[in-house]
Amino acid sequence: MTDAAFDPSERSTIHRLPSRGAYDKKTVFDILDRGILAHVGFTGEHGPVVIPMGYARREDAVLLHGSAKSRLLGALAKGTDVCVTVTLLDGLVLARSTFHHSMNYRSVVVFGRSREIADAKEKNAALEHIVEHLVPGRGVDARGANDGELDATLVIEVPIQDASAKIRTGPPVDESRDLSIDIWAGVVPLEMKPGAPIADEHTASDKPVPDYVRDYSKGR
Amino acid sequence: MTDAAFDPSERSTIHRLPSRGAYDKKTVFDILDRGILAHVGFTGEHGPVVIPMGYARREDAVLLHGSAKSRLLGALAKGTDVCVTVTLLDGLVLARSTFHHSMNYRSVVVFGRSREIADAKEKNAALEHIVEHLVPGRGVDARGANDGELDATLVIEVPIQDASAKIRTGPPVDESRDLSIDIWAGVVPLEMKPGAPIADEHTASDKPVPDYVRDYSKGR
Repeated sequence: MTDAAFDPSERSTIHRLPSRGAYDKKTVFDILDRGILAHVGFTGEHGPVVIPMGYARREDAVLLHGSAKSRLLGALAKGTDVCVTVTLLDGLVLARSTFHHSMNYRSVVVFGRSREIADAKEKNAALEHIVEHLVPGRGVDARGANDGELDATLVIEVPIQDASAKIRTGPPVDESRDLSIDIWAGVVPLEMKPGAPIADEHTASDKPVPDYVRDYSKGR
Repeated sequence: MTDAAFDPSERSTIHRLPSRGAYDKKTVFDILDRGILAHVGFTGEHGPVVIPMGYARREDAVLLHGSAKSRLLGALAKGTDVCVTVTLLDGLVLARSTFHHSMNYRSVVVFGRSREIADAKEKNAALEHIVEHLVPGRGVDARGANDGELDATLVIEVPIQDASAKIRTGPPVDESRDLSIDIWAGVVPLEMKPGAPIADEHTASDKPVPDYVRDYSKGR
């Protein structure tokens, strides 16, 4: 692994449409830093399991967290091979043939071995990093975790062993003989958009909406 | 398995916050039918792999497809245990404590064993079902697959053996002693929103945008 890129390994090399693949950290980290949800896969007692989780990247690792009562988190805490996938969906690509229909997206697939962050101080720092990833600016405002809350939480680190990004952009690519077919073809852009913030009933009605809520821009 | 619900199994039972879980087909199918992307996990030669894929539900099965050259699809075609997870992200839940931060979402986790649909006629029907799932209305307009295209495509069916849905909605749930903390708390709603359709350069400028493109509503 160099500073600038993840070495393509047997499991991370993109064989299909390799021109869509990338291994440089700039591309991989940019996608990881924009995402909200990761889909985390590992092989459990009964076979493969994929669970959606909030996450954050910190340097060359992905941080995960969850309840100390969660069996899934417990399995990750023991140390197991995991695959963490983050996908930003950018649009539907409507070609003239069903065959050439596609999607525009940016995705990252990370491979690594999970380990628990058990030390209370490191755990707290990791949790604050996750909150700051999900809602940049929130960490300063919210009350930090107390000892009981830290005990009730498992924090998992997945050092990135291999990673690859895959990106598709642009219009449909049709067979030239199909171009005369008289149908609309193109892209329906898709974007994860925040709606108007909904204050809860305990928030004073004159309490301003924080900038980091109003200008929320993750997920795209 | 009854007509109305999937029996909770060892692998599909929701232990954490079971009140958020559901096993009835109405709930499970509704989420599957709204989603655009699934995250498909299986155990490959080098361990767990999670890949984003377009999909469709058909009766009690999930349909997947991809290039016949894809090693991943090839592995699924041979028959393997898979986990198909679909997540609709509905919002960020900003509590007064970092501990009670959460997300609103609807997710489904499906377990089953993959198998190839090899028969050309069945394959074609499955592909048309997938296009109709992703862009309802498009199947009638687009040119269907020819024999060469069918040969270049692998179609996979995952009969749903076990499935569960998990849903969180509503405002943050804070500790009562935190309610006096003077910060904004509430929900930032998130929604997968289509932007203005972008016709490709081969589409006549006076060609109207089809209704199914203008009113696209999947992914939420």
